[in-house]
Amino acid sequence: MQESLGVVETQTVRLFTADEPFTTTDGDTVGPVDVAFETYGALNESKSNAIFILHALTGDAHAAGLHAGDTRPGWWDSIIGPGKPVDTNRFFVICANLLGGCQGTTGPSSANPATGEPYGLDFPMLSVTDLVNVHRALLRHLGIGRLLAAIGGSLGGMQVLDWGLRHPEELANAIVVAASSRLTAQNIAFSAVARRAIMSDENFKQGRYALAGVSPDVGLAIARMMAHITYVSEDALSGKFGRELRPNKDKPGFGIDFQVESYLAHQGEVFLERFDALSYVYLSRVMDYFDPFAEEGITAAIEGSPLGWLVLSFDTDWRFGTGHSRRIVRWLEGAAQPVTFREIPSPWGHDSFLLKVDRYHATVRAFLDRALEVGL
Amino acid sequence: MQESLGVVETQTVRLFTADEPFTTTDGDTVGPVDVAFETYGALNESKSNAIFILHALTGDAHAAGLHAGDTRPGWWDSIIGPGKPVDTNRFFVICANLLGGCQGTTGPSSANPATGEPYGLDFPMLSVTDLVNVHRALLRHLGIGRLLAAIGGSLGGMQVLDWGLRHPEELANAIVVAASSRLTAQNIAFSAVARRAIMSDENFKQGRYALAGVSPDVGLAIARMMAHITYVSEDALSGKFGRELRPNKDKPGFGIDFQVESYLAHQGEVFLERFDALSYVYLSRVMDYFDPFAEEGITAAIEGSPLGWLVLSFDTDWRFGTGHSRRIVRWLEGAAQPVTFREIPSPWGHDSFLLKVDRYHATVRAFLDRALEVGL
Repeated sequence: MQESLGVVETQTVRLFTADEPFTTTDGDTVGPVDVAFETYGALNESKSNAIFILHALTGDAHAAGLHAGDTRPGWWDSIIGPGKPVDTNRFFVICANLLGGCQGTTGPSSANPATGEPYGLDFPMLSVTDLVNVHRALLRHLGIGRLLAAIGGSLGGMQVLDWGLRHPEELANAIVVAASSRLTAQNIAFSAVARRAIMSDENFKQGRYALAGVSPDVGLAIARMMAHITYVSEDALSGKFGRELRPNKDKPGFGIDFQVESYLAHQGEVFLERFDALSYVYLSRVMDYFDPFAEEGITAAIEGSPLGWLVLSFDTDWRFGTGHSRRIVRWLEGAAQPVTFREIPSPWGHDSFLLKVDRYHATVRAFLDRALEVGL
Repeated sequence: MQESLGVVETQTVRLFTADEPFTTTDGDTVGPVDVAFETYGALNESKSNAIFILHALTGDAHAAGLHAGDTRPGWWDSIIGPGKPVDTNRFFVICANLLGGCQGTTGPSSANPATGEPYGLDFPMLSVTDLVNVHRALLRHLGIGRLLAAIGGSLGGMQVLDWGLRHPEELANAIVVAASSRLTAQNIAFSAVARRAIMSDENFKQGRYALAGVSPDVGLAIARMMAHITYVSEDALSGKFGRELRPNKDKPGFGIDFQVESYLAHQGEVFLERFDALSYVYLSRVMDYFDPFAEEGITAAIEGSPLGWLVLSFDTDWRFGTGHSRRIVRWLEGAAQPVTFREIPSPWGHDSFLLKVDRYHATVRAFLDRALEVGL
C-alpha cells in the first residue's frame, strides 16, 4: 500500500569551513560549504539500506513528503515514500541540494567570507565530480560508508554516473535515468542561449545583481521557457495544447494568444520564485563540460569493483534521448559492468523521469527490491 | 552549364498609396506600400514563363545574382540562375520582399504617414494572405496574369500554399518546400520565446526603439540563436562542431568556450546587421496563426481549378518535418489535386531548403521542366 511520507524537514549542515574549505577538481577552494538535505525512513543497524537521491539542474533537497504548511509534496514524491518504488519503509533515503545550488546549499549567491558579499562570478567553476564530492562528504557526516544505491535523473543521473565511475566502492548499485555522459552540440547550444539570455539581462550586472537589489528575471524566465520546451515531447505539447487559443481571444496580438504561450509564460514565472540566475549559469555549464568517458583510464576503478547499473531512457525524450543512454551502456559494458538497460515508452519526453510512468516505476522497484535482497 | 546571373539590382515600386491603401484581411489599412523586388531572366512574349519566388521569415528580394560590389550572391543563388533548376535562361523569375519585412518593402519600421514616425506596434497584424495579396498586386503591376509556378520554402512555402488555395487561377504550379499548413504547439512555443526575448529587451521600448535611437539587439540575437538551433539537425551540429572547444581555451568559463557557441553567437551577430526586431515579431506571429485548412470551404477554389503541386520535405527537418508536409498532401489530395510529394534525404535539417541538395534540386528541375513543357 502506498501512503504519504507526511511532514518532512530540510536540515542544514556545515561540511566545510572557511579554514578547512572544499577544494574543487580545478584546485579552487570554497568555504564554508553548507549543505541542505532531507532524509526519509530509517537507517538499519548494518547501515546497508541507504539510497542517495541526486537531483537535476533545478531540483532541491525536498524530494518527498510535505513541508509543514505546504500542500504540494517534494519533486519526486511519486517514486519515494512508504510502499513506493523507493520504499521508505525499507530504505533510508537521503537527498541533498547540490553544490552551486540555491536551495540551502552553498552556491554562487551565497556570501563570500572574503568580502561578506555574494560570490557572484567569483564562485569557482564546478564539475559534476565536485557536486558528487560534496554529497560524499555528507555521506561521511551521516556515518554511512556504502550506499545500497544512488539514483538520479538528468543532471542527477550524471552525478550517479560520475560517483559510480570514480568511487564504485561507495555504491552497490547505480540508477541513471534520462541522463547523458556527454552533451551534444545541440544540447550545449540550447544551454548557451539560456546563459546568454540571463547574462545579457541588464539586471544581471556581471553577477552582482543581489547587491544592486535587482534580479535578471527577464533573462531567467526566457532561459526557463526555452529549456522547458526541450523537456517535453512535441506530441505531449500538441496533445495538451494543440493550437488552442486562450478563452475570449478575439484577434491576434503580441500578448499571450495561444494556450501553449500561457503555459510557457507560467513556467517562466513560477521558476523565478524558486531559482537563482547564478546557480542556473553555473550548473548548466557543469553539464556542458561533463564527459567522463573522455578521460583516460576512467573505467579502471569499476573494472576492479563492479556495481549493478540500471540505465533508463524514455522513448520521446529529445533532450537526452535513448542514444545518450545507449552510449553510457556501451561504455559500461566495455568495462565489464553488469548493466540493465530499458527504454521506457512514455509520451512526456525528458520530464518523464519526474512523472509516475508505470513501467518506469515498476522497473526501478524491481531493481531496488533485488538490490535489497542481494545487499551490500 | 551553370553560370552566374551576374550583377542584379533591387527595384522598388509603390503599389498602394496613403489615399488608396492596402487593406488587410482583418480590415486594417496600410498606405503607402512600397515593394522591393528583383527579376531575373526575360518574360517571354506569351507571358507564360514567370516564376514567383516566395521568401522565408528573414529573407529578402535579393534571391540570386550579385549586387554591385558584393561578393556574396543572393540567398537562393544555388537554385536560381542560368542553367540552374530555376533556369533564368528560360524562366522570368520574380522575388519580392514581403509585406511587414524590413528589406525595402513597407513594414512596421516604415514611416506611418499619420505621424511621420515609424509605425512600431501600430502597424496592423498581418496574415499570410496579406503577404500574398501584396505579391499579387506586384504581379498585376508587372502585367502578368498567371504564373507558371510559385516556389518557396518555410514561410515562403506557406505563402505558395495560401496563394494556390485562394487563387488557383493565378498559378499553374505550386512548389511548397519544408513548409507547414499549421504550426504545432512546439513551433508556437519557440516562436513565443523568441518574441519574449525581443519584446522584453529594455531597448524594445514598446516598439518605439528607432525613435529612441536604440535597438533591441540583445533580444533579437537571442531570438535568432534559438531559432537557428531549430533550423539545423542535431546530427549536423554534432558533425560540424561536436564538443570541440575553441582554440586556446584552457579552462571553463562563461564566455564562448565551445565552437558551437562561437558559431551561434556569430549567427546572432550577423543577423542584427540585416534584420529588424519589429519585422521579426510581426512575421513570426503571421506564421503562428496560419491554418488555412481550418477554414470552411478553403479547398473549393482549387477543386474547380486544379494546379500542379510539388510538396517537398527533408528527412532531418525537425522544425517543419515530413509530418507537416504529409498533412498538406493529405488535404490537397482530399481536394482532388495532383500532388507530387518527396521526402528528400539531407543531413542539414530545415535549412536544407536553402542549400544545394542534389536530389532536391533535381526534383525541382524536373518538375519545372515538365511545367514549361505543359505550359499555362
